Amino acid sequence: MKQNRVEKVLSNMQEMGLEQILITDPVSIFYLTGSLTDPGERFYALNMDKNGECRLFANNLFSIPEIDGLEVIYHSDAVSFMPQLEKYIDKTKPLGVDKNLNAKFLIPMMECSFAESFKLASTCVDSARAAKDEEERELMRAASRINDAAMARFRGLIKEGITERELASQIEGIYKELGADGCSFEPIVGFGANTIDGHHVPDDTVLKEGDAVLLDVGCKKDMYCADMTRVFFYKREPDDEVKKIYALAKEATETAESVCAPGAVFADIDRAARSIIENAGYGHTFVHRAGHFIGLEVHDFGDVSALNHTQAVPGNIFSIEPSIFAAGKAKVYIEDLVLITENGKEILNKYSHDLDVVE
Amino acid sequence: MKQNRVEKVLSNMQEMGLEQILITDPVSIFYLTGSLTDPGERFYALNMDKNGECRLFANNLFSIPEIDGLEVIYHSDAVSFMPQLEKYIDKTKPLGVDKNLNAKFLIPMMECSFAESFKLASTCVDSARAAKDEEERELMRAASRINDAAMARFRGLIKEGITERELASQIEGIYKELGADGCSFEPIVGFGANTIDGHHVPDDTVLKEGDAVLLDVGCKKDMYCADMTRVFFYKREPDDEVKKIYALAKEATETAESVCAPGAVFADIDRAARSIIENAGYGHTFVHRAGHFIGLEVHDFGDVSALNHTQAVPGNIFSIEPSIFAAGKAKVYIEDLVLITENGKEILNKYSHDLDVVE
Repeated sequence: MKQNRVEKVLSNMQEMGLEQILITDPVSIFYLTGSLTDPGERFYALNMDKNGECRLFANNLFSIPEIDGLEVIYHSDAVSFMPQLEKYIDKTKPLGVDKNLNAKFLIPMMECSFAESFKLASTCVDSARAAKDEEERELMRAASRINDAAMARFRGLIKEGITERELASQIEGIYKELGADGCSFEPIVGFGANTIDGHHVPDDTVLKEGDAVLLDVGCKKDMYCADMTRVFFYKREPDDEVKKIYALAKEATETAESVCAPGAVFADIDRAARSIIENAGYGHTFVHRAGHFIGLEVHDFGDVSALNHTQAVPGNIFSIEPSIFAAGKAKVYIEDLVLITENGKEILNKYSHDLDVVE
Repeated sequence: MKQNRVEKVLSNMQEMGLEQILITDPVSIFYLTGSLTDPGERFYALNMDKNGECRLFANNLFSIPEIDGLEVIYHSDAVSFMPQLEKYIDKTKPLGVDKNLNAKFLIPMMECSFAESFKLASTCVDSARAAKDEEERELMRAASRINDAAMARFRGLIKEGITERELASQIEGIYKELGADGCSFEPIVGFGANTIDGHHVPDDTVLKEGDAVLLDVGCKKDMYCADMTRVFFYKREPDDEVKKIYALAKEATETAESVCAPGAVFADIDRAARSIIENAGYGHTFVHRAGHFIGLEVHDFGDVSALNHTQAVPGNIFSIEPSIFAAGKAKVYIEDLVLITENGKEILNKYSHDLDVVE
């Protein structure tokens, strides 16, 4: 077990008054054990008690490597895991459970009174995961360094006659050439007004002079994720409105980044970006939160939104990506990853924010 | 809304004594609406009441097309969906919930007494999904036809000097050439003793004379999944033990297939396959269920296992894949998809079961 991480979880459990938890997010289990398993629909859970004793419940289809300080208890497709698990849960005490524990497992546990009560307790692990240690920060820097270098390569693909699909299909290969393991998510590539649909899938749209070219892309390296967005313009400058929203998007991102520091409230960071866009009369075009946490997953727990009133702490890493669109023309957002440090912040992406016309 | 499917769900709700349910599996929502959205970590749920009134709760980041008979109620990252949803739930009645509803959403609903109680109710949709209608059967046949044709092409890749990774990397392209949309899951390709690890990832292992070549592969077409396994041998026949386990695997699959019919109990189908392997002294090498349901997902709800005492009904489609291995040498399983028809069964895969040595 990664003992320093187990200690953080134990201290969070103590703060919540919990003596036992059940962690079912395979990525959280990886974070604590160093071993990743995708259990599909099968039960897979790490039980931890207040003394730090850990037991992993796994289907015998999966072979879990030997891990110091971890007992692995196997079940099979032919025998329910419930009686095994029951032995280790103190029925007279609350049980903390993971936010992604399925009703499929949770409701039967409730129905047979597995524990005194069931508390949502994934913040015990999630807040540990959200405050990256030095080893993790270095891995996040490395992934974003590749993403910066890759963006320059992607810019080089912006050429007469290329389609969104052709551009998108080259992204993973470039990441691998640059040393990444692959994409951290399906790249978003949009030309012109296609940029406005936040879930546009790259299609056969051919690049035209004057088009915005939006690239929202990330790689994964050694399990950690990068995520960055830049918008280029092809062959000529955009019209005045698009130039204006570009300047606003840049100002919104840079202003939000400037207020990032330990102690800053996430809702205030969101507000800093949002005010700029609202004051310019484009508030209705910025329909999402200003950013999301990132690490072992592209969307880690935690976000930069009006609903998050917690304060930033050293090791937090999140995106800043306020967006703005001009109807029928283009959407623009400049997305960087920000690391909160002990004294301030570090912007993990160094790629220029300036309006860039690709000849 | 797909009204015939809504009717099936309503009838299942009535049977369970439920007047309201919350469906959160995006694939189940697609099954009922024809519209697919991947909400990531955001709340996304279809609420259906006993009168068949349907409301979809979605984040405004996602644009849901107009759907007949469906009201879409949007929330945003800045405002919780809970007060909106609360208005539509009758607090004095039980609420049926999906098996994959996360504790993240379920526990807060319980804590604010959203409903009189919470019942696991995904079988209302899952058992509808498990009994494929004629349109779905045709799509499943089409996907498996491509899989059969593709298997012949994959066989052609078995050549001097090829590695597992090189073979695996060509699979998706071949599926697309044959008209599929892509893979339904990451292909399992193993040579020699690598076949024994059920979760082996194709690596740089080079094909050697006498190797078993295991291909557990599936394509997806028009949202429906195929899944089939064949084991070939390279250049020469395997030794006597592997020949024996090949014959046993073939007999186990064919025997289990032969007992498939409406009314057959799934545990008995599993038993039919398992007895053959156990009686030959290899029971300890067959560590998983004999098969899984399949349709819109590779692993749909339902399986062919000792724990499933329900009876097969027309429209059920599932895999039969009893496996057996000779330690240090090879694992063998012959996997087909079986459709239960009104009068019997139809084996969706036609590719030969015979031992095949590729020269």
